[in-house]
Amino acid sequence: MLTKGEIKYIQSLQDKKHRDAAQRFVVEGAKWLEELIQWQPDWIEKILATKKWKEEHKRAADSFVVESIEDYEMEKISFLSQPSPVLAIARKPVHENPVFDHNRWNLVLDGIQDPGNLGTIIRIADWFGLPAIFCSSDTADAYNPKVVQATMGSLCRVKIIYGNLEKILSETDIPVFISAMQGNNIFDTNAQSGILVIGSEGKGVRPEVAAKASRKITIPRIGRAESLNAAVATGIMLARLTSPRQLSKGH
Amino acid sequence: MLTKGEIKYIQSLQDKKHRDAAQRFVVEGAKWLEELIQWQPDWIEKILATKKWKEEHKRAADSFVVESIEDYEMEKISFLSQPSPVLAIARKPVHENPVFDHNRWNLVLDGIQDPGNLGTIIRIADWFGLPAIFCSSDTADAYNPKVVQATMGSLCRVKIIYGNLEKILSETDIPVFISAMQGNNIFDTNAQSGILVIGSEGKGVRPEVAAKASRKITIPRIGRAESLNAAVATGIMLARLTSPRQLSKGH
Repeated sequence: MLTKGEIKYIQSLQDKKHRDAAQRFVVEGAKWLEELIQWQPDWIEKILATKKWKEEHKRAADSFVVESIEDYEMEKISFLSQPSPVLAIARKPVHENPVFDHNRWNLVLDGIQDPGNLGTIIRIADWFGLPAIFCSSDTADAYNPKVVQATMGSLCRVKIIYGNLEKILSETDIPVFISAMQGNNIFDTNAQSGILVIGSEGKGVRPEVAAKASRKITIPRIGRAESLNAAVATGIMLARLTSPRQLSKGH
Repeated sequence: MLTKGEIKYIQSLQDKKHRDAAQRFVVEGAKWLEELIQWQPDWIEKILATKKWKEEHKRAADSFVVESIEDYEMEKISFLSQPSPVLAIARKPVHENPVFDHNRWNLVLDGIQDPGNLGTIIRIADWFGLPAIFCSSDTADAYNPKVVQATMGSLCRVKIIYGNLEKILSETDIPVFISAMQGNNIFDTNAQSGILVIGSEGKGVRPEVAAKASRKITIPRIGRAESLNAAVATGIMLARLTSPRQLSKGH
């Protein structure tokens, strides 16, 4: 049985202010919990679950603090329109200062606002094996419940690091590729490593950040749509850039 | 001033049943209206707009039936959380029977459920210059307000045709490529044309449809994410397949 204070506390974690103060965030859903238990068990502070979930996950119940709660309580604390049988209160991970890797593709986001897009991009980064994403401070918060949900567990494997992009891009000698409407065809780009910068949905990459670019790259448009969704553009670029085929193709 | 009956009628167009009966759908937003006026003026039955929009769009006001309504009325009929200054009641287009094109890539969707995904896919198809998308009957309805919104105007340029996929795939001699978890690397696929089939978010392509495939293709996974978002996967595949670069690369 949850106290009023506990319910209020969990509900408060919808807001970034409260997540930052508590250094906690919420994970929901049976599938997500499996990922969390497998990949980041140390993040788990407490699991709140229906009796049924607890009975079906005896090992989890032995390893973690699992409190069983009633369906109506889950409805009160869940951020989902259809509450799942399990919810965890998790510790926000602390990541070191950003370090770009000279030997692979690094992803930088400049001001992505839509939580669904950010979550989808984290999932894409995970698919293509990127260990981290570097974000401008005005990018959506990765621990926002909608982002967490959209990552479908990939948040366990991809470090999300926020910082001053102008500064960190000034301090590196790795080539910076900016996604832009006018630029070199991504399919003509044969670089094996670098930093890929994706801009916000409406405005693209800010001029201060674009000023750090070595090269502008673009996805060639054949038809008439004015733009591509930011997550779709990230997927197309990372797929192309990380594709092993380019190794054998060269110039 | 809208009558109660008119308000009720517009609200009813949220539901597929009523859209099908009336053969009408709703378009909202100043930007979307520009696309509609430019590309499909014949679809427009009636425009409802604030006085300000009407004054700023005198040519539209001369060419179409434009009724000015008050903000509080727009709030009542809008499907958006933040109502825009303009809304159109549009005629659903009638498209001929599906005809695949031997000389280009054709896109087929098997059971895409999420309206946001379908809208994003229509926008992707438009970006890559596809004139049509062929959908199984259980794919989300393209005239659902959430889909319409997510297409950002691309619905004006891409024909959405629903039908029996097993039947139409049986009747064609064009090679069918199925997006699958296990298949040939999309970056090793050098076909210049064909039919690309994308399955639903949870279940992929149905076995009955997969049985019509000439080849399975896949986006190579480097990391750990279990899957890619269906719209992102469509974007990656269409970008690769329609890329002019493959012409010069070949095998």
